[in-house]
Order: sequence, then C-alpha cells, then structure tokens
Amino acid sequence: MLSIPELQDLYVKQESEILRDYFDLLRFQSIATDGAYKSDVLRCAEWVAGYLKQSGLQVEQWETENAPVIFASDLRAGPDKKTLLLYCHYDVQPVDPLDEWITPPFEPTIRDGEVYARGAVDNKGQCFYTMLAIKTILKKRGKLPLNLKIVIEGEEESGSAGFCGLLKEKKGSLAADYLIIVDSGMQKIEEPSITLGARGLICLEVAVQEAGHDMHSGMVGGLAYNPNRALAEMLAKLHDEEGHVTVPGFYDEIIDILPSEKKELSFDFDPAHFTSLFGFKPIETKGVPPSEVTGLLPTLEINGMWGGYCGPGFKTVIPAKAHAKLSCRLVPDQDPDHIGALVQDFLKKITPKGLQTRVTFFPGGGRGFRANPHSPIVDIMKKSYSDVFGKPCKMVLIGGTLPPAVALAECAGAEMVLVGIGLPGDRIHAPNEHFGLDRIKMGYMTICRALELF
Amino acid sequence: MLSIPELQDLYVKQESEILRDYFDLLRFQSIATDGAYKSDVLRCAEWVAGYLKQSGLQVEQWETENAPVIFASDLRAGPDKKTLLLYCHYDVQPVDPLDEWITPPFEPTIRDGEVYARGAVDNKGQCFYTMLAIKTILKKRGKLPLNLKIVIEGEEESGSAGFCGLLKEKKGSLAADYLIIVDSGMQKIEEPSITLGARGLICLEVAVQEAGHDMHSGMVGGLAYNPNRALAEMLAKLHDEEGHVTVPGFYDEIIDILPSEKKELSFDFDPAHFTSLFGFKPIETKGVPPSEVTGLLPTLEINGMWGGYCGPGFKTVIPAKAHAKLSCRLVPDQDPDHIGALVQDFLKKITPKGLQTRVTFFPGGGRGFRANPHSPIVDIMKKSYSDVFGKPCKMVLIGGTLPPAVALAECAGAEMVLVGIGLPGDRIHAPNEHFGLDRIKMGYMTICRALELF
Repeated sequence: MLSIPELQDLYVKQESEILRDYFDLLRFQSIATDGAYKSDVLRCAEWVAGYLKQSGLQVEQWETENAPVIFASDLRAGPDKKTLLLYCHYDVQPVDPLDEWITPPFEPTIRDGEVYARGAVDNKGQCFYTMLAIKTILKKRGKLPLNLKIVIEGEEESGSAGFCGLLKEKKGSLAADYLIIVDSGMQKIEEPSITLGARGLICLEVAVQEAGHDMHSGMVGGLAYNPNRALAEMLAKLHDEEGHVTVPGFYDEIIDILPSEKKELSFDFDPAHFTSLFGFKPIETKGVPPSEVTGLLPTLEINGMWGGYCGPGFKTVIPAKAHAKLSCRLVPDQDPDHIGALVQDFLKKITPKGLQTRVTFFPGGGRGFRANPHSPIVDIMKKSYSDVFGKPCKMVLIGGTLPPAVALAECAGAEMVLVGIGLPGDRIHAPNEHFGLDRIKMGYMTICRALELF
Repeated sequence: MLSIPELQDLYVKQESEILRDYFDLLRFQSIATDGAYKSDVLRCAEWVAGYLKQSGLQVEQWETENAPVIFASDLRAGPDKKTLLLYCHYDVQPVDPLDEWITPPFEPTIRDGEVYARGAVDNKGQCFYTMLAIKTILKKRGKLPLNLKIVIEGEEESGSAGFCGLLKEKKGSLAADYLIIVDSGMQKIEEPSITLGARGLICLEVAVQEAGHDMHSGMVGGLAYNPNRALAEMLAKLHDEEGHVTVPGFYDEIIDILPSEKKELSFDFDPAHFTSLFGFKPIETKGVPPSEVTGLLPTLEINGMWGGYCGPGFKTVIPAKAHAKLSCRLVPDQDPDHIGALVQDFLKKITPKGLQTRVTFFPGGGRGFRANPHSPIVDIMKKSYSDVFGKPCKMVLIGGTLPPAVALAECAGAEMVLVGIGLPGDRIHAPNEHFGLDRIKMGYMTICRALELF
C-alpha cells in the first residue's frame, strides 16, 4: 500500500498536468437545467469519458433525454473480490446573479490557494480528484485490488431524472457491494467526517393568476386583488412564527431517529463558525437544537419568487400573475410526491377568492435516507479519512440532497456512504464558488487510500 | 368656427400623412425610466420639436438631466386674450413582458381599426392628436383665437423629476389662465367625460437582506430566515382581510369629498363592463362602493417583487436578499413624502429579527388633486366633448396619476382640467397597448373645437 508521503509525492510530481485537466473540466458550461447549455453539457460528458478511457477503464456512454451518463469499470480483480461503485456528477448549478462573481464562473482563477469557478467543488472538483485517484492507482499498480465501477451523471443539480430513468435497464451494470457517493463535505477541515444520511427533495413552481394581462395600477388599483399581494399572503402562510411548516400533514410521515442511532453520529454545531461563514446567526426552531436542524428536520423554502416589474426604474403595473419556486428538504420517511401534493392542496386552499393557483412539479428530487453505520464501507472510509487527515473521522448527517442516492443504492444492491471535502464556506450554488488546491490533493489521497484498503 | 363635418373632412383629406407622422412618433423607444434608451428619448424629443416648429409655433428645448422638455407657443393673440397651456408627454412605459406582445411594441401595427404599439394611447397618441389639432387650426385660420402654449415632457412615466425641477425657473414661460392635461380617458366611448381629479403617487423599492451572498438550501435550510419568506411575510402584513392598508397613519390626512362636490361628479361604474375588460370581478373594499374606489381611496400596491432563482429549471438557493417595488396611489390631502416615510417605518418595524430592510424612494410622483368644476376651462371642454360626441359630457375622478399636474397648475397659476380619449381596455402600461384610429380623429376634433371655443 502506498504511504501518505508517497501519495503526496506522486501528486506533486504531476501537479501542473493535474491543474490543467481540472481547469479544462471546469471550463465547460455544463448547466444541464437550462437547455441553452446543451452543447457544453455534451462536450463535458465527452471530456469525462475521454479522461476515464485514458486512465485505462472500459467506458460506456449511456444516453438520456438530456445529459448523457458516463459509466466506466475495471472488473479484472474477478468475482472473488468485492465490487465498489463510485458516483459523481459533471453538471453544475446556474450562475446567476452573474454580476456578483469576482471572476467569470467558467474561467477558473486561483486566488490565495483557492480555485474560483462554478463547479470548483460541486461536483467537478470532487469528481476530478476521484478520477485522478483511480488513474494514479491504476498507473502505479497496473491493476486494482477490487472490482471498480464509476458512474458520472449530468443532471444531478436538476433532479437526476435521466439517470434515474436508466436504473432499471442498467441494474446489471451498476450492481455492487458498496456505493460511495463523492458529493459531500464536512463542517471544518480540521474535523474529518463522512456522511451517513442526506435529506430528500421535492421542487415545485406556483403561479397565481388573476387577469389575462398586466394592468395599470391607477386604473384598477383597489379593484384588483394584486397577484403579487395574493402570492405574498399565501407564501406568508407556509410557516408559523416558530418556523414550523404549516402545511397540514407535512410532518406526519417522519420516522424519528433512534437514540442509539443518534449516539453514533456527530451533531457538532458551532454557531460562531456558522455566523462567521454566512454573516448572520442561525435562527431558532422551537424544540430542536440548531445542530440537529439540517440533519433531522424537513424544510419548505421559497427558492425564487417574482411578479410584476423587476427592472430598472419603476412601472406602476398590476401584473396578471405572480410566481414562486418552492422546495422541500425531506427526512426519512417522507415521500416526495406525497409532500408535493400536500403543498399543492394547501396553496390552492389558501388562494384568495377570484384568483387561480397552478402548481407544477419538477422531476427528480428523491427521498431522504440514513445509511447503516456498521457497514464495511463505512469502516474503510473512516480509516482512509483518519489516515489522510491524521485525526479520527466522525459520522454525520447532512442537510443537502443527493437526488439519486437512495435509488442508486437500491438498484446496485449496495451499502452506501457519502464522502467529500466540501466546506460550508465554499459557496456552492452561489456566486464565487471555490475549492482549495490543498483539498484537491487531500480528496485524491482519501480515494487512493480507500481503494488500497479493500 | 369650423363645423364638425368640416373638421372631419380636413382629417380625412390628410389621413395618410397623419398616420405616417403618428407611426413615426410611435417608433421611438422613448422609455425614459431605463437609461439604455437615452438616445431614442433624445431623438423622440427632437422629432416632437420639429413637428411643432413645422406647425408654425415658436419652439424651445429645455434640457434636464434625463429627457428634454419641449415647449412651444404662439402668443400672437396678444395680452387681451386668455392664455391656454396644454400638457402632454412623449416618454412611454417599459414593454416587458415582451413575449406577450402579439406584434413588436415599437412597430405600430393596425388590427381591426386599432393601432397596436407602446405609447399608442399613453401618451404619444393623445399628444399626437393635440399637436395635429393645433397644426390644423393654425394652417386653416392662419392664427389662433387665444394665446397658446404647449409643454411636452419626457419623464412622466418615471415621475417627471426633470420637468418639475424646471418649474421654478420657467414660471414665466408657463404662466397661463387655463391648463389642459391631455393624458386622461373615459370609461366608455359612448359616454364622454372629462376628468376633474387624479390620484397622487409615491414609489419605493424595498430590499430585505440577511446574508452577504446566496446560500445552499440544503446546507442552511432551517438555519436561515429565507429573505424571500421574510419579504412575503412583510408584504402580507400591508393589507388587512378587507383590503385596507394597515400602515399606521396611512389614512390620517385624507380630506373627505364634500357631498356637494360629489353630487356634480359622475361615479358610474359597470361591474359587468369591468369584468369583460379584465377577466375578473372587481374586489370589494368594505364600506366603499367600487364606483368610488379608484377616485376616492388610496392604495398600496406591490408592482414588482423578486428574490432568488427565477430562471428556467430549478435552483435550490436561499438568496442573500429579496426585493419589492411598491407604490401608493394617494388622494387629497395625502403628502407623498409623508406616506412614503410611514410605509418605510412600518416595513422596518415588521422586519423579522436578524434581517435588514432598506427602502429607497423614486423621485417624482406628486399629490392627488380635485379641480374646480366651475372653471371656464371646464365649461369649454365639456362643450367641446358634447359637440364632437353628440352627447352630454360628464365630469369624473380618475385613479391614475399625472405626476406633475398639481405642481404645473400651481406654477402656471392656471385652472386645470384633464382630458383624453383613453379607454380602460386600451392596455396602457401593459403588453399590446392599442388606440383606435377613430379615436385619433375624435381627439383631434375635441382639441380643434376647444381652441375655437375660446
């Protein structure tokens, strides 16, 4: 097994080539949620396939309606050895508000040892060091000590609909003993952790309409129920004063975590650290300590809302309709479709008289989950992180969502763990996303070490 | 005095030239509220000045910071004759949502006898027939029976700040016995009316901010007070269930209309007609019949609101801030600045803990007013409308705002009336604004007749 200094040395020797490849990957505008970027999505998938092929893997490209899925494998270890499936994605979040980026989102730039670019962390950075680790171990040892599969999809940020649609058909290809989702992070770089649970997600869009066309606020002001007002009033009814979601039935399906389960997990939360990262104090949800909120509680968030004139200057219009994009983060055992239906029913019920509410759902999302803390894959990843970081590795739950995680684990028949070296201050999904050069190296070492621990 | 058939005949003879000029005026993208259209604003002002010069008037161009004011006069009638000041504007409202226009907003198109274009009515259409009337009478009679002044500004839709800033300096030029604001309308074409009052206006923008940057809803969802949620809750508190504005002090300054005043005015309101125009039933405001709502009650409207991700697809973001554009329509004797301050104070007071609210005010606006129904200018305009329409002319109050009306009337020392042939279904300020070809002619005749009635 290669020692940590040997892994470091291998990295340093090829560093300029590594950064060139990483930057090439970051330059693709692979925003799969917006059809305007289709050609960059396709070129990005092609680049990923090429990289894996050059590393010595057998590569397949699986077509979907939108973004292709890249699947690669090396099964030469044979049927006596365990099979590991790795999961990453090459698509990224949209970049607006664009004017808040200090340097353009698709021109990776290094400042103070951090690489700034959309996808620098989520998930191109983590995908890249994973591929780099496989390439390095294969090159150094000639073969792998296990059967390895890696699947890299291109629609994770918009719900993985295409990928999930392939699971049934590709069940044989994806079958594995263990699944590592490399799309997670840790609270602090000094406290290594791996992730045993994530929240589910359902996304919807609401349109509240009154008239067939925009109107003049002098002419009908006082006679029209302004759809902006109606929508604001409806959205204001989604939470009570204590921050709880008021949609009837919203909390009914939740399976409370067992005390024994809770004891094994880390729920560390440093409010001062949170405030230093985001500039505000975490709010209080009555009855739940902030340390448990993102892991154990569901949410309903207004991710976008718009109506009327939002440009420069002023326009005294009463709009024909107003819109909002809502999402719920879900915990076990909430069913995304059922929760979506509850939210839809509630919104329709609280629509003021004379207006119409239309709700549409976005595909994808997925259920929340909590993985088995006693799986061998958990032990391997804990040991790998401890070896690289020189510290014990915790186990945590995260508030984010890996849309296809549960479906993929079920399809593969695999025990699952989530890993990654994202940090809360990395601004993923926001302007000026960034990832440390040191973390590319550490991520690479954790995957290298894990492969050799099998 | 020219008879109505003679006026019609004069119009028909020059109709193709008239439409060519009207369409030329409509093609300028004179959206003064948006700096991107500055050059079109300037070219539009130049065109208006050229038209008036060709008509035989003395023309001046008064510079302001944004859009120039065109002033023209013919004072040859001499000091024994009365002086009339006419007011119009050449700027137009923004055009979004652009995709709802059937034909492009700055390519005037005739369908079923209606001219479709931004500004077709408000106010280029009405400005154009006013200039056409002056040109026609001057050409036919060689001179006018009164001293005539016309002022055409270019910032009415964004609050007339530049024009109002000139009033003190131009007091001498603007002095007049009577002022006609040609920027109004009537409920139905079969029921001619002139306007004796309009509402005032104050416009403001609200920004509610929590963090310094957008955040990931999985990471901080449940720990952050989403600014979209905060703004929705704040906006929802601006009206009670009966539609009354809840801002403390909002109604305190209102001067109730005298019963004698009310008796002279027409408050006809046809709910079925309203519903056929806008597609919904007028809402009820407790204690005030819908016929009096737009004339006698102030409003607070959300003209625009936006926050978070509003593009195609989905982005699970918690935005750093959320925004709204609000405006209040005001009645006598509400002071716009005072009302603005009350709204600002209330919004700050109801901001959830941990977030900051910033309010900015847009310049312009102005007070509401009710004019003297016994002025000679009211008699002249009523007679002119009756002659052209062949029916008695009513007197009404409107819900819209003529930002500089009160200030201009005071500056000119003039008695004021508002006239125009806009109709509620004209979609001014909205996509597919349109004006009937027949109304261009009727408007022209009302102004011609009024000039000859002096």
